[in-house]
Amino acid sequence: MEILETAAALQARTEMWRRDGSRIGFVPTMGALHDGHLELVRAAVAENDVVIVSVFVNPTQFNNAEDFNKYPRVLESDTELLRNTGCTALFAPTPEEMYPRPAVLQLDFGPLERVMEGAHRPGHFNGVGIVVSKLFHLARPHRAYFGQKDWQQVAIVRQLVADLGFDVELIAAPTVREADGLAMSSRNRRLSPEARQVAPRLHEALLLAAAHLPAGTAVAQAEAQKFLGGFPGIELEYLEIADAQTLQPDLTAGGDVVICLAAWLDGVRLIDNVLVHPASVTAQRNSGGQA
Amino acid sequence: MEILETAAALQARTEMWRRDGSRIGFVPTMGALHDGHLELVRAAVAENDVVIVSVFVNPTQFNNAEDFNKYPRVLESDTELLRNTGCTALFAPTPEEMYPRPAVLQLDFGPLERVMEGAHRPGHFNGVGIVVSKLFHLARPHRAYFGQKDWQQVAIVRQLVADLGFDVELIAAPTVREADGLAMSSRNRRLSPEARQVAPRLHEALLLAAAHLPAGTAVAQAEAQKFLGGFPGIELEYLEIADAQTLQPDLTAGGDVVICLAAWLDGVRLIDNVLVHPASVTAQRNSGGQA
Repeated sequence: MEILETAAALQARTEMWRRDGSRIGFVPTMGALHDGHLELVRAAVAENDVVIVSVFVNPTQFNNAEDFNKYPRVLESDTELLRNTGCTALFAPTPEEMYPRPAVLQLDFGPLERVMEGAHRPGHFNGVGIVVSKLFHLARPHRAYFGQKDWQQVAIVRQLVADLGFDVELIAAPTVREADGLAMSSRNRRLSPEARQVAPRLHEALLLAAAHLPAGTAVAQAEAQKFLGGFPGIELEYLEIADAQTLQPDLTAGGDVVICLAAWLDGVRLIDNVLVHPASVTAQRNSGGQA
Repeated sequence: MEILETAAALQARTEMWRRDGSRIGFVPTMGALHDGHLELVRAAVAENDVVIVSVFVNPTQFNNAEDFNKYPRVLESDTELLRNTGCTALFAPTPEEMYPRPAVLQLDFGPLERVMEGAHRPGHFNGVGIVVSKLFHLARPHRAYFGQKDWQQVAIVRQLVADLGFDVELIAAPTVREADGLAMSSRNRRLSPEARQVAPRLHEALLLAAAHLPAGTAVAQAEAQKFLGGFPGIELEYLEIADAQTLQPDLTAGGDVVICLAAWLDGVRLIDNVLVHPASVTAQRNSGGQA
């Protein structure tokens, strides 16, 4: 596995790979790799000739300086983890390498970013859109891999790819969870023992909301909030129930539904979501409702 | 010369050219080609292995329906003109081909678009940024060619390329003019005989402003406005004097200065600009000013 630190070095490699007809898989990450990331890398290795993993804690997508400063940075152990995966190249640039000058252009994803993370982290998806565009132009991937834990991010990147015409196939892989249900996240490393113990309640709350969905979104939301209210270590920031494609609360289109939340546990902000297929909601409704 | 009408066809071609190591030159146009365009094509032919010219009247960069509807569309004669240039492929898609769905993403170029065309044509540069991004992703050019008549557009595209990290070299070529000084433009075809006769006064006004620049921007602006006021067939929309890089009226950085205008002549809107090197301003100032 090659380690590349400059944009020019990555560009030279990907130009060469494109020339020789290699299929390029790309997994953008902010490092502190966990099994969720490694699942993406394994999928990329299985489906492409060469695989690039980027590790870059992108300053422009953080709206909170403390979150940025405390974001775990463990490049050495990340490198070791990647060595056993079949990853071809690790791209680990500095912020100066990615942003020789600050960007002037601002990206606005409209209704897609007026909810959930976009509503609570002003400028977050502008930062995501800019860095993903830059990384795509350097890595020139045929396929790019993202985790569904960041459901809204996947929707944003899908819109970016469609609207700017990037020639890349997006692969969104299911969230990988700990045995107790906690969604794997780099930020889990920062949890205090107490916070780690209560953290699986987030996923339980999402499942509870999903179970109550046949009774309506208001009931589902209230039940989940009531449940989480029983754990003083959890401060819910939002719990939103939305159409999985549009991310808007209007569910009348009848497609998949996504239930997303963000919560603070002892100074650490976690997000999670579950996807609900309308068929399962209808089945539950027909059998008399609340599971 | 090959004529391609679908995104997939162009993409297949450019993928192949990239694979075989060809250098790709790209000239995006809205058609109704004139010698200004052909100069760009000739430069692209001289400097690249293959050259793609696109002809696409992009609906999303028009804020005025009449301007869009009356924009000249003469694909047959454009095709004939291109046949003699050495152009490899003409890309002429439909709006539906370029926009299978309307874009959600909005691009905001900040201060760069708060002036001149951006200030007077709301949404114009969002449309330009989106279509240029799409075209770049289809044409995969090594070099892209633009005319300096659209000075602000060149600045916007340069920012787009820098901020999203497009791997393309931008070439901006000087404005080509008719013998009487009128900047070549596809919209010139729509000028009435009377409007065509008075149109060269726009360039004269810019030269007059440049000549008065040593006396200050207010004087330069006033002189040009007074001059144009003498021609009832010309309705000036704006005349702005700005730093050629930032496009802002603050000239204290001492770099090149651009003088830009837009004006209506008998229902047709034309733009033009001249570039002034500060050395020439200083020289004039030292020799006592007004040329």
